[in-house]
Amino acid sequence: MVEPITAVALAGIPEARAGDDPAELIAAAMPTGRPLARDVVVVAHKLISKAEGRTRRLSEIVPGGRARELAGRLGKDPRHVQAVLDETREVRRAQRGVLISVTHHGFVCANAGVDASNSPDGDTLILLPVDPDASARRLRDGLRARLGVAPAVVVTDSFGRAWRTGQCDVAIGCAGLRPLEDWRGLADARGRELRATVIAVADELAAAADLARAKDAMQPVVLVGGAGRHVTEADGPGVGALLRDASQDLFR
Amino acid sequence: MVEPITAVALAGIPEARAGDDPAELIAAAMPTGRPLARDVVVVAHKLISKAEGRTRRLSEIVPGGRARELAGRLGKDPRHVQAVLDETREVRRAQRGVLISVTHHGFVCANAGVDASNSPDGDTLILLPVDPDASARRLRDGLRARLGVAPAVVVTDSFGRAWRTGQCDVAIGCAGLRPLEDWRGLADARGRELRATVIAVADELAAAADLARAKDAMQPVVLVGGAGRHVTEADGPGVGALLRDASQDLFR
Repeated sequence: MVEPITAVALAGIPEARAGDDPAELIAAAMPTGRPLARDVVVVAHKLISKAEGRTRRLSEIVPGGRARELAGRLGKDPRHVQAVLDETREVRRAQRGVLISVTHHGFVCANAGVDASNSPDGDTLILLPVDPDASARRLRDGLRARLGVAPAVVVTDSFGRAWRTGQCDVAIGCAGLRPLEDWRGLADARGRELRATVIAVADELAAAADLARAKDAMQPVVLVGGAGRHVTEADGPGVGALLRDASQDLFR
Repeated sequence: MVEPITAVALAGIPEARAGDDPAELIAAAMPTGRPLARDVVVVAHKLISKAEGRTRRLSEIVPGGRARELAGRLGKDPRHVQAVLDETREVRRAQRGVLISVTHHGFVCANAGVDASNSPDGDTLILLPVDPDASARRLRDGLRARLGVAPAVVVTDSFGRAWRTGQCDVAIGCAGLRPLEDWRGLADARGRELRATVIAVADELAAAADLARAKDAMQPVVLVGGAGRHVTEADGPGVGALLRDASQDLFR
C-alpha cells in the first residue's frame, strides 16, 4: 500500500538575503504539526543560492575574449556569458541564444543554471549552489536543530530535456532521501521480473513539488507528504547517483 | 494562490483484458465524490494498451533478418526485437541490451516502449497505444458519459532520460489538459521578465502520480487533485506539444 502524495507550497517565506539561514526561513513558515520525519522539504535552489551569497552583479563582471565571442554570436550580454562560462566545465552547444553547459557539478543544463529571472533587481545573476548536496544536508541539520525533526530535503532547478519541450523541475541536491528506487530483479505483481526499472524518485519529487507553486509567486518551498518510504535516517548519497555517466548514456 | 497537490492511487482496478472499457474499470474504482471536473486522471499506458488489444504473443512473432542480427548483437530474443522494430520509426542506438527507438509517435525511448514486465504471462508483449492522445480522449469521454464529470486524462509511460540515471514517468497522451504552461513574457513576482520558462505540466503530473503507486502493485490509475488550473474544457492539443523538434533540440 502506498500513501497518497500531498504537496503544498509554504506561504510567507521572505526573499532570502546573503547570510540568511534557509532553515530559519523555512522553519518559521512551517504549518502547525509539520514537518513529519517522513516529509520531504523541496526547495527551489534560488532561496539557497541567495542565502549562500551565490549571486554576482552583472555590472562587476569583466568579460574575457571567449565570452565576448560567444556573446556576439548568441546575441547575449557578454558579462552574462562570462558568468556562465565561470560555472561551466564543458560547453556542449552555443546556439539560438542558449549555451548548454556541463556544470562543474556535472549537470547538463541551459546557461549552467545562471539565471537573471527572479533576481531582486536587474543587475543580479543567481548561480547554482557550489555543492547542492551539502546545502541540502545543512538545511536538514538546521531543521533538525530548530524543530526536532529531520525531514528529507531536495534542492531543485528547472531543466530543459533532450527530445521533449518544456522544463521539468529536477533534483540538484538532496539529503535524507534514497534518490533512486531500484526495482531491478524484484518481482512485479504477477511474479515476473521487472527489468530496467530504476525510478528517479528525487526528480519525481521535484516535479510534483513544482506543480504546487506558481512561478510568479514567491513560493520556493514545497512540503511533500506521503513519500516517507524514500526518506532515510542517513543523509545518503545525494544526487551524484542521478548523474548518468556519459559512456553509459544511450539517450542522447 | 496555488492549491495543494494530492495524488492517490485507486485501489481495486482489475487487470484489463482486450475489449475492456478503461472508463468502466476506472469509474468503478473512483472514491465517492470524485472525480472533480478539475481533477486529472493519470493512467499507466499498460491498462489502456491491454484494453485496446495492443499486445503481441512472442510465440507468434517470426523475426526477420534485421531483428535476428540486432538480437544476436544485443543478446535479446529476436522475436522481441522484431516487435520493437515494428513499433520503431528510427533506431537511434543498439547497445548493451537496449534499443533506443524513435517510435512511430515520435517518442524517444528504450525498446520503443515494448515491455514484457507486467504482462499477465511470460508470452505477452505490451505495446504503446497506437494513438495515446486518442486513447486519453476516449477515456475522458467515457468518464463524462458514466460520471457526468470530465476530468483531464494523462496516459503515461516510464522513460529513461539523457544525462540522468533512472526513469521518470512522462505523458505519452493527454486530453483536457494544457500540457505546457508558458510563462514567457509574463512578469515574475518582482516584475522582471521570466525567460525561457515553459513548464512541461503534463510530464510533471505523470511524475507526481508515479510517486503515489508502487511498481509491484496493480495500481495503474492515480487521481491527481489541485492541478485544476491546467485542466481545460476542450480536449486540447495532446502531447504533440511536448515533442521537441530535432532541429530545435540543443539538449542531446
